[in-house]
Amino acid sequence: MFESAELGHKLDKKTYAREAARLRADLLDMQYDIKQAAQLPVIILINGVEGAGKGETANLLNAWMDPRHIETHAFPAPSDEERERPPMWRFWRALPPKGKIGIFVGNWYTDPVVARVSGRIKHAELTVAIDDILRFEKMITDEGALVIKFWFHLSKDGQKKRLKALEKDPKTRWRVSKRDWKLFDDYDHYVNVSEHVLRETSSGYAPWTVIDGSDENYRTIAVARHVLDTVRRRLTQKDGKKKVSSRIAPFERALDGRDLINSLDMTQKLSVKKYASELEKWQGRLNLLARDPRFREHAVIAVFEGNDAAGKGGTIRRITGALDARWYDIVPVAAPTEEERAHPYQWRFWRNLPRHGRIVIFDRSWYGRVLVERVEGFCSEADWMRAYAEINDFENQLNRNGTIVVKFWLTISAEEQLKRFKEREKTRFKRFKITEEDWRNRDKWDAYEMAVCDMVDRTSTEIAPWTLVEANDKYFARIKVLKTLCERLEAALK
Amino acid sequence: MFESAELGHKLDKKTYAREAARLRADLLDMQYDIKQAAQLPVIILINGVEGAGKGETANLLNAWMDPRHIETHAFPAPSDEERERPPMWRFWRALPPKGKIGIFVGNWYTDPVVARVSGRIKHAELTVAIDDILRFEKMITDEGALVIKFWFHLSKDGQKKRLKALEKDPKTRWRVSKRDWKLFDDYDHYVNVSEHVLRETSSGYAPWTVIDGSDENYRTIAVARHVLDTVRRRLTQKDGKKKVSSRIAPFERALDGRDLINSLDMTQKLSVKKYASELEKWQGRLNLLARDPRFREHAVIAVFEGNDAAGKGGTIRRITGALDARWYDIVPVAAPTEEERAHPYQWRFWRNLPRHGRIVIFDRSWYGRVLVERVEGFCSEADWMRAYAEINDFENQLNRNGTIVVKFWLTISAEEQLKRFKEREKTRFKRFKITEEDWRNRDKWDAYEMAVCDMVDRTSTEIAPWTLVEANDKYFARIKVLKTLCERLEAALK
Repeated sequence: MFESAELGHKLDKKTYAREAARLRADLLDMQYDIKQAAQLPVIILINGVEGAGKGETANLLNAWMDPRHIETHAFPAPSDEERERPPMWRFWRALPPKGKIGIFVGNWYTDPVVARVSGRIKHAELTVAIDDILRFEKMITDEGALVIKFWFHLSKDGQKKRLKALEKDPKTRWRVSKRDWKLFDDYDHYVNVSEHVLRETSSGYAPWTVIDGSDENYRTIAVARHVLDTVRRRLTQKDGKKKVSSRIAPFERALDGRDLINSLDMTQKLSVKKYASELEKWQGRLNLLARDPRFREHAVIAVFEGNDAAGKGGTIRRITGALDARWYDIVPVAAPTEEERAHPYQWRFWRNLPRHGRIVIFDRSWYGRVLVERVEGFCSEADWMRAYAEINDFENQLNRNGTIVVKFWLTISAEEQLKRFKEREKTRFKRFKITEEDWRNRDKWDAYEMAVCDMVDRTSTEIAPWTLVEANDKYFARIKVLKTLCERLEAALK
Repeated sequence: MFESAELGHKLDKKTYAREAARLRADLLDMQYDIKQAAQLPVIILINGVEGAGKGETANLLNAWMDPRHIETHAFPAPSDEERERPPMWRFWRALPPKGKIGIFVGNWYTDPVVARVSGRIKHAELTVAIDDILRFEKMITDEGALVIKFWFHLSKDGQKKRLKALEKDPKTRWRVSKRDWKLFDDYDHYVNVSEHVLRETSSGYAPWTVIDGSDENYRTIAVARHVLDTVRRRLTQKDGKKKVSSRIAPFERALDGRDLINSLDMTQKLSVKKYASELEKWQGRLNLLARDPRFREHAVIAVFEGNDAAGKGGTIRRITGALDARWYDIVPVAAPTEEERAHPYQWRFWRNLPRHGRIVIFDRSWYGRVLVERVEGFCSEADWMRAYAEINDFENQLNRNGTIVVKFWLTISAEEQLKRFKEREKTRFKRFKITEEDWRNRDKWDAYEMAVCDMVDRTSTEIAPWTLVEANDKYFARIKVLKTLCERLEAALK
């Protein structure tokens, strides 16, 4: 879930100054709308790793907006007054009324996460805490509140650098405490627990937004922009206007233009010779793994998504080439049948789940909900927003059942795709592979790219991570896929 | 939650025959609407104690409706096919498509409840199972399904009688297995676990309906009527017509006219002398309990609801008369202030929660949401439906925090109320107590009575049960309240 936040987003001074000026004016207007027009209560949660700019961002939002309509709350150790009431009491006390913005630096997520990392509570207690949170957020959103949740992230290296930099500067040294370094030692555990909590609580009605905290300019603008967009989207819904007004871009690029896809090194390739030897190696390994007696307690679901003409079919054949035909099924996913349309969208995938000891390969999958259905507007924003949580829940159930879920996004560049399309049109036996629709999809390249990045950010989890595959070179792509598959299987059979 | 289902509802043959004829015709029409007009998938869950008529009811629904559009599913022990997939897989397989009705006799609730009762799973695992269920039901309702959940209940005595009767008749002997008697031995535990599961899963989008299973005629008609009403309500919503059409009564009396309120023995009374001695006894006990050092780990919230002029004020004074003025607060709840209206409806109650060692008495409470706000239409059906779950959740948090929640409904008969109203008008110093509104409320006596019964059924839980107080005689009422309060405190301090 933290993939995009580790790209090292950066914003130059000039862009920052320009955006900041624009956003400050817009945010003030927005406050007026919240107060006068809509009487909307807005709750902004600020969480994340230490040193990622949580406090600074809260200060900045206060500085940019009219502070008379903002309430900022931090929650240190509970008072005796607070300890003698249910844990949520302190937050109820601090809820902003209609028309105001409440910024919660530290909030109902803080204690459960810290308590779990420190071992003070067990997993079962964390489950109960998550449950309480879900019910609470559901209730306040049902009651009309808008909840915006930010998670400030730093990579392990990033956090270390940041803490050291703060310590070095006499002006900021006070910011770094022993506790911060103690937390840093627990970084991996902390990120693990956080990832779990984020996954379980990123609901359709109150989703998380992960912010790369490494560059101050970038994170400031990213936060301000997200607040503005989310509030505007909500206000236009409330007014009964069309759901997304022209002022709101449904797909907005990160300000520095960087994303998970365009940060890939697309030049990676393998020679024919190297490919041949690697293919033999990994296919052999995969065959052995599928025969391993321990695999009888597991199953594999391999999900293939990717750009049109990215080579999914060929890659899948390199996997099945390593397997006995009785061990696997390939499920090609196209437009749903009438029977499938008569059921919830996940139904067609549940139908095809593997038994233990078997492998099912999905050639396109349930991710169509947040890709094609989202981009083409086949379902509403509310539908695809809740789909992320539903999908995580689905894969969580598979994981608990011993199913290993391996997900690949095969990416090619726009130029490479054009080349392949043209080849397909020329080659008689490949012509069936290229349709009008493929050409139309190219027009929405940017929208698809951003939908893919959102998808990876929201559904790449510890139990079912995405693997982005650079597929301009087919050899490279196939080996990366086979290798990943083998490694995931090996880890699970250990 | 099982209060109404233990009243021993009964339906005579004649009424049954008349209602059955009408309902069968209506249910067939309804099926046509589901199929042709709305393409609505309907999922009916049938759960409850053994011998309460679960199977018979499923058969009957099949017999009454067009079986071509019904799918009935039972789920015996999972097959090996099923065991090797996630537990929800078998239910996904059985989901009815749009336009059909799926009847699930035994379903996703069966195994978690049985496993918990038998001790096969721990409480934490039950929590996870409940969580899975909530997410699943949320998803399928978000996807457009209508989920109707029945819980068939029998009192302990009722179940024993029923099992014996089945055993006696050679034609039905086969229905009773050793397992049924084993389950009967666990009756209390089973009902406890069930109550917990019902409370946690009675959501606004998929609420439970508890059915008294003791009389076949009654339960059959009750189920058929509820299915019909729920589907009709949904269909009128879908068509964008006004939310509740005239064919649907928002408050429909049980067919035999019996409910929790009119089953009370309103003739109960105490002599002045007896009252005086009892008052002294229980006030003394309450005083001692409030001084008990163990009470420092607890708090009390006493909720008073009741008919207008039922004597709430006088009763509250008999409680506070036993207490030091520094120990308690009385919170009178009238129309919300502007500040309170700017927050979620529960906010005004969270503000007034007691610290440990203290007592807060709410003179009217959060139950206004499902009483006056429901009856007067101050909030939407969706709002008050979800309020039951929100309230249970609220009281659950209080309970976990050591707060003892004691809830009283003071009931008087319509005649007694009229008498008291007239007295108030005559007595100069009591005139402020009677307003136009009180007279208006009398016109809605029936609607209020049914809202009260619903409230008790949906929010009387093991951790925070309702006590219905027969208050035609003030002396009797006051003593019953004091005694209940003392006993709840004693149980908690043990």
